[in-house]
Amino acid sequence: MPLLAAYLLPDLVTAEQLAGRTVVVVDVLRATTTIVHALAAGVREVQPVPDVEEARSKTAGWPAALLGGERGGKRIEGFDLGNSPAEYTREKMADRTLVFTTTNGTRALQHARLAKKILVGAFVNLSAICRDLQGEEDVVVLCAGTDRQITREDVLFAGAVTDELCRSGTWQVNDQAEIAADAWRSAVQQMTAGSPLATLLRASLGARNLIEIGQERDIEIAAEVDKFDLVPVFDPRSGLISVL
Amino acid sequence: MPLLAAYLLPDLVTAEQLAGRTVVVVDVLRATTTIVHALAAGVREVQPVPDVEEARSKTAGWPAALLGGERGGKRIEGFDLGNSPAEYTREKMADRTLVFTTTNGTRALQHARLAKKILVGAFVNLSAICRDLQGEEDVVVLCAGTDRQITREDVLFAGAVTDELCRSGTWQVNDQAEIAADAWRSAVQQMTAGSPLATLLRASLGARNLIEIGQERDIEIAAEVDKFDLVPVFDPRSGLISVL
Repeated sequence: MPLLAAYLLPDLVTAEQLAGRTVVVVDVLRATTTIVHALAAGVREVQPVPDVEEARSKTAGWPAALLGGERGGKRIEGFDLGNSPAEYTREKMADRTLVFTTTNGTRALQHARLAKKILVGAFVNLSAICRDLQGEEDVVVLCAGTDRQITREDVLFAGAVTDELCRSGTWQVNDQAEIAADAWRSAVQQMTAGSPLATLLRASLGARNLIEIGQERDIEIAAEVDKFDLVPVFDPRSGLISVL
Repeated sequence: MPLLAAYLLPDLVTAEQLAGRTVVVVDVLRATTTIVHALAAGVREVQPVPDVEEARSKTAGWPAALLGGERGGKRIEGFDLGNSPAEYTREKMADRTLVFTTTNGTRALQHARLAKKILVGAFVNLSAICRDLQGEEDVVVLCAGTDRQITREDVLFAGAVTDELCRSGTWQVNDQAEIAADAWRSAVQQMTAGSPLATLLRASLGARNLIEIGQERDIEIAAEVDKFDLVPVFDPRSGLISVL
C-alpha cells in the first residue's frame, strides 16, 4: 500500500526522514501561493534562497533577475517585489528569473532537499498537485507553518490532499495526515453551510499576521482553489523551481 | 476573553511558555487514563518519576508503595504493575502510593512543571476536567504524543475539551486547538454514524503500538468517556498527583 504522511511543521520530521520520498511543500500564506502565481505569470524559474544578503548578491549584475520576498511579512528594502501574489503579474514576470526569500517557505523547501521529488503546492494548484501524486509510492505533505508554529491554513491544505488521494485509492496514512483530513472535512462542511474558504482561513495564525500588516486581500487570493493547473518542482541541485 | 491553547506535542511549547497557566496533560494511551483509574480505585496518590531506577530506589523499604509503569509498552521487570488501566483494581490500590513511570506521559507532566495548576485528563474523566476548567483564564491542553510524534487519540481529547468549552463560552483559541476541535467534530460525526470512539482510536499511532503488544483491550477502556467523575491534580513541588 502506498504511504501518505503529513508533517504539520518541518520540525516534526528530519531532512533524513524525507530522503527518497515525494514531498509537497506548502506555505499557503503566502510563499507557495506566490511561487505558483509567479510561474503562472511567466517567470522562467524561481530560485529560493534563505537569506536577504544572499538574494541581493545573486542578482547583482544580472538584469534578467527579479528580487522578491519578505521579512516580517513586508517587502525587503531594495527588492523589486514583496510576498503578495497580487504583485506577480505577467508584465513584470515574463522571461525573468525570480530570486525569492521568505521566512517559513524557504526553510521548508530546504528541509526537503534530500527528497526524490519536491513539489510546490497551495490551494491555487491543489488539483494539479493531487493529479501528479497519483501513482507515487511514498508521499509527504510538509507544512511550513509560521515562525515554528503549526498554522491552520497549511494543515487544511495537507488535509485536502489527503482527502482527495484517499478518495481515489487506498493509502496508509500517518496520524498527522488523518488529523489534517479531519480538519479539512470539517472545513468542507462549513463551506457547504455557506462560509467560503477565505473566511475559514481568516482566523488562522498566518492570516491574522497578514491582516495586521494590511495584506488581507492575499487571504482571498490564496483561497482561490485550482486557479492554476500547474505543478512547480524544486530541484535542490540546481536550486531552481520550474514548472513540470 | 479567556485563552485556550492546545499543543499537539510537548516539543511544540517550552516549559517557560506554560508558566502560570492551567495545563491539562493528556496521554490517552495510556498514562493519564491509567492514573485516573488508579486514583478512582483508591490509591492515595501517584508519584510520576522519569526513570526506572529512580522509581525502584524510591520504593525500596516503603511497604505502602506500589511500583507501576512501562517501557516499550510492557511491564518493567520487578514492578508490581504495568501501564494497563485494567490492572489498577480496588483490591490492589486501596491506601497505597503508586510510584509510576511511563515514557511519554511522565515527560509531559514534567514539561508542565511551571504551570499554575496541572490537571490529568483522559476520555475517562473528560466532563469532570471540562467542568473544572470553567472560569479559568488561560488554559492549555498539552498532548503527550508517542515517542515525540503527534498521535491522534491525544489530539481528539484536546479537540473534545476545546469543543466543550467553546459551547459554553467564548474563548480565544490557537490554531492547534482549532485543528484538534475540527478533528474531534469529524470524529463525532463518525460516532453518530455508528463507529464507537474505540473503533476510531484503533487506527492511531498509540493504538497500533498497543495492538502489536497484545494490549488491545486497553483501547476500549481508554474510550469509556466519563467513566469517572474526578480531577487528578499534579503538584510539581511535592511531586504527587492526587484527587482535587
